[in-house]
Amino acid sequence: MTATPVNTPRLDGYRMPAEFEAHRGCWMLWPKRGDTWRLGAKPAQAAFAEVARAIRQFEPVTVGVDRDQWENARAVLPDEIRVVEISSDDAWIRDTGPTFVVGPDHRLRGVDWQFNAWGGLNGGLYFPWSRDSLVAGKVLAIEGAGRYRAPLVMEGGSFHVDGQGTLITTKECLLNPNRNPGLDRLQIEACLKDYLNIEKVIWIDKGVYQDETDGHVDNLCCFTAPGEVLLTWTDDPGDPQYERSRKAFDLLSTATDARGRRLTVHRIHQPEPMAATPDECRGLDVSETAKPRRAGDRLAASYVNFYIANGGIVMPLFDDPRDRDAADLLARLFPGRNIVGVKSREILLGGGNIHCITQQVPSGGNRP
Amino acid sequence: MTATPVNTPRLDGYRMPAEFEAHRGCWMLWPKRGDTWRLGAKPAQAAFAEVARAIRQFEPVTVGVDRDQWENARAVLPDEIRVVEISSDDAWIRDTGPTFVVGPDHRLRGVDWQFNAWGGLNGGLYFPWSRDSLVAGKVLAIEGAGRYRAPLVMEGGSFHVDGQGTLITTKECLLNPNRNPGLDRLQIEACLKDYLNIEKVIWIDKGVYQDETDGHVDNLCCFTAPGEVLLTWTDDPGDPQYERSRKAFDLLSTATDARGRRLTVHRIHQPEPMAATPDECRGLDVSETAKPRRAGDRLAASYVNFYIANGGIVMPLFDDPRDRDAADLLARLFPGRNIVGVKSREILLGGGNIHCITQQVPSGGNRP
Repeated sequence: MTATPVNTPRLDGYRMPAEFEAHRGCWMLWPKRGDTWRLGAKPAQAAFAEVARAIRQFEPVTVGVDRDQWENARAVLPDEIRVVEISSDDAWIRDTGPTFVVGPDHRLRGVDWQFNAWGGLNGGLYFPWSRDSLVAGKVLAIEGAGRYRAPLVMEGGSFHVDGQGTLITTKECLLNPNRNPGLDRLQIEACLKDYLNIEKVIWIDKGVYQDETDGHVDNLCCFTAPGEVLLTWTDDPGDPQYERSRKAFDLLSTATDARGRRLTVHRIHQPEPMAATPDECRGLDVSETAKPRRAGDRLAASYVNFYIANGGIVMPLFDDPRDRDAADLLARLFPGRNIVGVKSREILLGGGNIHCITQQVPSGGNRP
Repeated sequence: MTATPVNTPRLDGYRMPAEFEAHRGCWMLWPKRGDTWRLGAKPAQAAFAEVARAIRQFEPVTVGVDRDQWENARAVLPDEIRVVEISSDDAWIRDTGPTFVVGPDHRLRGVDWQFNAWGGLNGGLYFPWSRDSLVAGKVLAIEGAGRYRAPLVMEGGSFHVDGQGTLITTKECLLNPNRNPGLDRLQIEACLKDYLNIEKVIWIDKGVYQDETDGHVDNLCCFTAPGEVLLTWTDDPGDPQYERSRKAFDLLSTATDARGRRLTVHRIHQPEPMAATPDECRGLDVSETAKPRRAGDRLAASYVNFYIANGGIVMPLFDDPRDRDAADLLARLFPGRNIVGVKSREILLGGGNIHCITQQVPSGGNRP
């Protein structure tokens, strides 16, 4: 039923659909660790629950929860959100969950990447990550989907696909020696082609400034449609993000995708630079085995870190004057989808945002 | 999706099918506690895996496993058995799992009984039982089945139904003051009628001698078909079981079921009385919060404690000369089903047998 296939998705004719294709549902995990999430994770849980409720307007949502939080999550989340027991080290299912691929028969399988907590003992964010490593397999068992075990240390947030053969990623992350030191760029490309069934990889240099994932592309830019990319941006040349976004813009504007199309690059201006406050950091557990989170640390805030649901976009809001412009732009880029904003500072404080805490399950059979 | 309905199964037109009706599959849990299962539960795990494999010949099997045993269970069990994370205090899903009921639209829901570890602080088998209490809800979430929360302390092993309105149980268990001291027999009957949608309760005095569940009926007798009951038996008047089985036989032979039929009572002779050995008991963890298991304790061995699968019977074997006769009788009583025996002493040592560690999911819509 959930046996590991011997071949690769490419050999079996499976491909990863784009996030904007139709979904069967969405998976999330429930935050609880006190050294990532302040005040015993209660504010983060409220924010995650708000994201889950927002997505549930559009598609089914399942939340995986540690045994000690099951009763609490079950009570906090509305009945129509499914809660199942899945233990984890933290709550980033974009990175620890499976990457779903769809077969020619519309069957669903999943790719289970190697996970090392964003860099292992060489810059990773916490130790151990043994429970995170099992999340993808457990999700696939519940979904009844076969599991491809990929030989690559990788996180789901480090790439985006257009569903038509093109993948975008960053060198900062995927070529980082703390991920796959034994593999060169061509070998990594070959593996991406085998496991996601893509034809072309577009390599951006760097992700968002101070992004603790080593520059995951899902905080920097994403496909909004085949041939169309949305990039986080700043008009301020004095902002360290300026050079990063400028270079990505230049690269993307001149790149062609797997089908030979030039990409249209839309820019979405970032919110005002923001940092964690002393009061926020005081609410964290002290830990010797997790990244310290200090007052004044710049937060890698980006509007690109949204989730595309069936008929909807669930986007982060930062209580920033640019929230409105960002929502308006997304409404134009995603005609026919309702834009729902969720105040996401509590998620951002933990090091990510809405896209990082969600994982779509494609419905398959809906290639646009 | 898995909301708790406001009504009872009876009001909603749901009923519990008999075990011999068609199944969608079977649930089990994975044993691990060292004070129930000797040698770190390794022999018990091997026996449970054998039961799972036997049932898997006939229908899908899902095994719920504690997070710390997930990798081990996943490795030990064959790929075609689904493994999901469900924590529990022990592995008796007959008693801690949901009792599935089927609606007129063939929809599946489940009854989640109150659980107190077979008697709570007044004769129960271990403390705490907080994880066991959540098992039913977690199974129902994964099955996508609504949950009825019943106001009765009860275990699934304490009753059997014929799927046509009749329930059999024992006074020793259901009227035990360590279960529902505030309810009398009529109130308990009313609750059973509401939650299982049955019409008639047949009360047997006592279950099997030395059965630590306070005489669960599923170790004493069961329905093999509407109007037909199978009862564990001994020809030895000196055996403490003799009087118990004799009384049950007399009662059942004169009882009528919900449809007014007289019951046909088949007898299946128990194996020779057996006890835990000193060597077996030495392999157990010492515990102050669980029932002690001592060398010389008689084991409540009964052939009735089998599982009825689609097209099969998975029955306990005791390395006893009567194993063969028991299998032959089951073959006659269940024409068209294959009889598969599993050596179950390691399960028996923990206090139950194959029926106690399994829970069927009816397919519905197949009322015989």
